[in-house]
Amino acid sequence: MNFGEIIVWETLGTAALILLGCGVVANVVLKNTLGNNGGWLLITVGWAFAVFVGASIANPTGAHLNPAVTIGLISTGHSNFGWAYVPAYLIGEFLGAFLGATLCWLAYKLQFDTHDEPANTRGIFCTGPTVRNLPWNFVTEVIGTFVLVFWILLSPGVKVGSDGIPSFGNGALGYAGVAFVVLVVGTSLGGPTGYAINPARDLGPRIAYAVLPIRGKGSPEWDYSWVPVAGPLVGGILAGLIFQILPT
Amino acid sequence: MNFGEIIVWETLGTAALILLGCGVVANVVLKNTLGNNGGWLLITVGWAFAVFVGASIANPTGAHLNPAVTIGLISTGHSNFGWAYVPAYLIGEFLGAFLGATLCWLAYKLQFDTHDEPANTRGIFCTGPTVRNLPWNFVTEVIGTFVLVFWILLSPGVKVGSDGIPSFGNGALGYAGVAFVVLVVGTSLGGPTGYAINPARDLGPRIAYAVLPIRGKGSPEWDYSWVPVAGPLVGGILAGLIFQILPT
Amino acid sequence: MNFGEIIVWETLGTAALILLGCGVVANVVLKNTLGNNGGWLLITVGWAFAVFVGASIANPTGAHLNPAVTIGLISTGHSNFGWAYVPAYLIGEFLGAFLGATLCWLAYKLQFDTHDEPANTRGIFCTGPTVRNLPWNFVTEVIGTFVLVFWILLSPGVKVGSDGIPSFGNGALGYAGVAFVVLVVGTSLGGPTGYAINPARDLGPRIAYAVLPIRGKGSPEWDYSWVPVAGPLVGGILAGLIFQILPT
Amino acid sequence: MNFGEIIVWETLGTAALILLGCGVVANVVLKNTLGNNGGWLLITVGWAFAVFVGASIANPTGAHLNPAVTIGLISTGHSNFGWAYVPAYLIGEFLGAFLGATLCWLAYKLQFDTHDEPANTRGIFCTGPTVRNLPWNFVTEVIGTFVLVFWILLSPGVKVGSDGIPSFGNGALGYAGVAFVVLVVGTSLGGPTGYAINPARDLGPRIAYAVLPIRGKGSPEWDYSWVPVAGPLVGGILAGLIFQILPT
Repeated sequence: MNFGEIIVWETLGTAALILLGCGVVANVVLKNTLGNNGGWLLITVGWAFAVFVGASIANPTGAHLNPAVTIGLISTGHSNFGWAYVPAYLIGEFLGAFLGATLCWLAYKLQFDTHDEPANTRGIFCTGPTVRNLPWNFVTEVIGTFVLVFWILLSPGVKVGSDGIPSFGNGALGYAGVAFVVLVVGTSLGGPTGYAINPARDLGPRIAYAVLPIRGKGSPEWDYSWVPVAGPLVGGILAGLIFQILPT
Repeated sequence: MNFGEIIVWETLGTAALILLGCGVVANVVLKNTLGNNGGWLLITVGWAFAVFVGASIANPTGAHLNPAVTIGLISTGHSNFGWAYVPAYLIGEFLGAFLGATLCWLAYKLQFDTHDEPANTRGIFCTGPTVRNLPWNFVTEVIGTFVLVFWILLSPGVKVGSDGIPSFGNGALGYAGVAFVVLVVGTSLGGPTGYAINPARDLGPRIAYAVLPIRGKGSPEWDYSWVPVAGPLVGGILAGLIFQILPT
Repeated sequence: MNFGEIIVWETLGTAALILLGCGVVANVVLKNTLGNNGGWLLITVGWAFAVFVGASIANPTGAHLNPAVTIGLISTGHSNFGWAYVPAYLIGEFLGAFLGATLCWLAYKLQFDTHDEPANTRGIFCTGPTVRNLPWNFVTEVIGTFVLVFWILLSPGVKVGSDGIPSFGNGALGYAGVAFVVLVVGTSLGGPTGYAINPARDLGPRIAYAVLPIRGKGSPEWDYSWVPVAGPLVGGILAGLIFQILPT
Repeated sequence: MNFGEIIVWETLGTAALILLGCGVVANVVLKNTLGNNGGWLLITVGWAFAVFVGASIANPTGAHLNPAVTIGLISTGHSNFGWAYVPAYLIGEFLGAFLGATLCWLAYKLQFDTHDEPANTRGIFCTGPTVRNLPWNFVTEVIGTFVLVFWILLSPGVKVGSDGIPSFGNGALGYAGVAFVVLVVGTSLGGPTGYAINPARDLGPRIAYAVLPIRGKGSPEWDYSWVPVAGPLVGGILAGLIFQILPT
């Protein structure tokens, strides 16, 4: 696997993840859709199987799709992890997230153009808290991401290779496991902040929201944007560090 | 596998797919049913596992069930693909779709006969846009179908043989993967146009709606009918072409 | 496997199926529950995984749980099928269904005793049509059961042994496939008649409703009771006969 | 596996289970969340995949997570079961449940602090009956737990070793089976009492509710607390005893 190939696969996988993930929110939030007002379970099912699709596609690179996973794997101390490849993962993750968000906007172009509250469409792209208190919002994101990365490190269905790259088992159904984890993190820990649990998932689409010519759009709320970046990174690192001290 | 057997299996599988897929929409749309007004998640779950059932049944022929899958596989450039069999796939897909739509009407015959808005039953059979703008509706169908076919081509759980025929793994659960993809395409990209993502799924039942003696039926809206045919075909071809240039 | 053991396993499996299946309807229909008015998707998910649990338990006998499955397997013409064991399957299926319905009533005893429309509790136990027209109701049950039995006969995940006994693969997840089929039959074909698709599932609890001292209960509607018995049997037989003429 | 390691894994797994399980109830019950009023299916899906995550994490110790499972396995009479380890399981289960409940409170701290009916938050932590009648509530918990433990003992996907420790198969997806069982116990038997089906799941968070400084909290309702402890224990023991007399 070379640098460029990592970028290609992580870009494709993350783009699929964000297209489908932001897509389900667009379907629920925007007015002129078939899924309008479809509820939280619809949203969490959408995001869960968005991960399933994105991870299947990015299978050649271990399907990180998420800087918190990349940094969590590093934090386990695998000496063989290819540090030189970390920038390739990050580039692919953020590039893919931006690309996926753009495709989501195109797929729902007519709905964005006819939505009756265009200033309230930020939530389709990136997360925000229901009760704003940045330190506590940060805590919630740490806990949610910790669960995700800890599961990846400990699940008997996931083998983390000596190079630190996870393998989710042969067959696409291996990725059903990570879909189930993302599903339950959403149902159970997504209530307060919308479970970014992935810096690329949040920041990439937030940048897309800021730069795309979306009709009547509102603020990207940059002041909150560090929370869904820092929280997941800390959650991933914590999972890796605690993993190190567990009995084997 | 000979020409006639392909027709048999693809007809049976597509008939099951459309019976169950159109069936869940009938259950939600028609008034005198137990699932009336059941929501978008119910519809997308129904279509997803309709694919599971149809694909399990059409396992001997690689379970295309969808001209966009057939043409997407051809577009990957597999030189051994049996071009001579393509008409058999297409015949089976459209024949099965018509047959499945007819069975759906029979299963819900009493509900069709007692529905209070019979002119609005077209949506049970075929798709339509929430905001009509044919070029953008086309884009949405291209994106949705691209995701489906791209996943089939890239998923580690699906092996595309040297003859271009996909295999979804031993055991019926291999088809759970494609059900999950169809589920998330529905939850996330189905909002604007109802995710035909399959020319046979849309055109076959549309013809059935036009010719069956359904009480008080409305227009089959032929002017829209090319979108859910052309969009999926272009999406499938794009997936195949991009697949060709990916690193292996 | 001897006669008595078949009865034991089929009784236990069918009891679990009916306890959990009737249970989810009780949860949705009865007033003083946490799942009251929970919707059709909740009901179909409940029945689907009720089959998962019941089939896992009855694994030693091939998990028929349903006379339509038993007769459907016979209809395939497997000469080695143990006809002598058919009565054992039927006894276990109906005994288990009665037992499961009784356990459901006990689990929801307080809710039955405090329900505000006690005459309307029949639907918790057995099915009924939303539009009454017995021949068409029969057609709907035939179609739904045909899908179920046809999938069992054709799914690559199910191996029907030379003795006619199906095997759903090693591991409990093999039964997830049949759960998915029952899920989609419910979402998609359950709208008109409540998808009995199993004579024991319907008649056993109907008898239980008739004989148990349920507070203020209504009529068991015997005049309809032959439809969810005959329809599924015909559907199962049709699936077996058509299976015989398919290319192999 | 030594005493301390059992405590570590069971604590971690049960903490994840309770964090995610109580989390989904918090999301549905508390006002300022994205999942508010999300319905019973959302709650049961959340708890089901909470078990999936917790069991994956506690895989090294057979993922009991539940004293009713521990005692149910003992009740099967496996002479090699490590009785000396039972206290380690129980310590881990209760410690983890308390820890998970505390993490849930922290993740939803802002929502607890801004909830408009703070005296009604007990249900986030522990179960209660919709119709109070302790003997019948007890029966409901016995039946629900019996189904869970009986499935674990009989499922072909679960191998109970000669030491009495269950193994759910290689790969994380083995735990999908137990998630499906917990899902259907919730959809179908959770209506009357909220399906504790696990003494640690109920008592641990109840103690947490009693001792944590939750704003404006109500009573932990100690008088009910024995039901979701004794009912599950009896259900687990019954499953083990009946398992002993089944044909093998």
